[in-house]
Amino acid sequence: MPITVSVRTTAHVDMVDITHLVHQEVEKTGVTDGLCVVYVPHTTSGVTINEGADPAVCSDIIKKLGQLVPPHDGYRHMEGNSDSHIKASLMGSSVTVLVEGGRLVLGTWQKIFYCEFDGPRSRKFFVKAFNC
Amino acid sequence: MPITVSVRTTAHVDMVDITHLVHQEVEKTGVTDGLCVVYVPHTTSGVTINEGADPAVCSDIIKKLGQLVPPHDGYRHMEGNSDSHIKASLMGSSVTVLVEGGRLVLGTWQKIFYCEFDGPRSRKFFVKAFNC
Amino acid sequence: MPITVSVRTTAHVDMVDITHLVHQEVEKTGVTDGLCVVYVPHTTSGVTINEGADPAVCSDIIKKLGQLVPPHDGYRHMEGNSDSHIKASLMGSSVTVLVEGGRLVLGTWQKIFYCEFDGPRSRKFFVKAFNC
Repeated sequence: MPITVSVRTTAHVDMVDITHLVHQEVEKTGVTDGLCVVYVPHTTSGVTINEGADPAVCSDIIKKLGQLVPPHDGYRHMEGNSDSHIKASLMGSSVTVLVEGGRLVLGTWQKIFYCEFDGPRSRKFFVKAFNC
Repeated sequence: MPITVSVRTTAHVDMVDITHLVHQEVEKTGVTDGLCVVYVPHTTSGVTINEGADPAVCSDIIKKLGQLVPPHDGYRHMEGNSDSHIKASLMGSSVTVLVEGGRLVLGTWQKIFYCEFDGPRSRKFFVKAFNC
Repeated sequence: MPITVSVRTTAHVDMVDITHLVHQEVEKTGVTDGLCVVYVPHTTSGVTINEGADPAVCSDIIKKLGQLVPPHDGYRHMEGNSDSHIKASLMGSSVTVLVEGGRLVLGTWQKIFYCEFDGPRSRKFFVKAFNC
């Protein structure tokens, strides 16, 4: 079983800062210099890296994605959440981050965000860190 | 030479489920616990992970991408397929998936899709799996 | 410290071909068969792989992204560069490329582009190559 981390999202569309959770798992692995992959096994959510200092950045991302991919737009998928699937592919199902000295090497303003597009729900993601 | 897999796309814009092809190649490598990268060496197609149970999800993704990036929209590129290039960058040129016990670790509904944006054509993609 | 490469962007929105810079760093590492990750530690720029032969492709990508995500669109983020952040997440913060015989395995037309969305600026990116 891969390292699996739970996350609770609290809105229908939500970006949750999971950086500390990923850090924690990387530390547990003892990996010092290599890479860390964060993978989302759901099809109506994704993961992205962006600014974490001002929460308005995430709310602007969420709003713009909602304008580009509105919830109802003549979709064929009967479950009514095609917009969530489309946004998931636009953000992507994984991010890859460098690890040095046992820590994620993120830029000054970078945080890792779990992108919920069909919540609120209990979700999970995988963390795979390795020396290389 | 990397492991190269051929795929035939059957429409101008097409999403082809390549999950079984990737599985097959991972099995051949004997990799048990690690990662698998699927890489597309073309510039008018990409790869994404999304729902495979209802084909309407893919048709909704294709339709929405076509609305956001129409085929003719005052582009400068003379080959007339700028929309295909733009969609390729929106989906991305690779996906990374965990491997455990010799199998891809995908979510219940997840499938890997080759995203054709300028077909139909004979295409190829690379598979790189490794223990880590 | 990861391998860090500097790049100067020359327009507010700019796509800079960094393929030769990445090649150079991979060669220095002596990695022969494996993978190379290019990672952007900034939150208003990204990285993508697309056609490098005709510069019109990049200008079409830039123009279309500007239409989808205009600079001023009722954003909340006070710094006035929300469009740059949103475009960064659409392109992504990293790409992964195969390495064989000490060289990046890119498709015939593929080049790696640093995507500047809030320049011109001095920027940097990380290169992580490893045998696997």
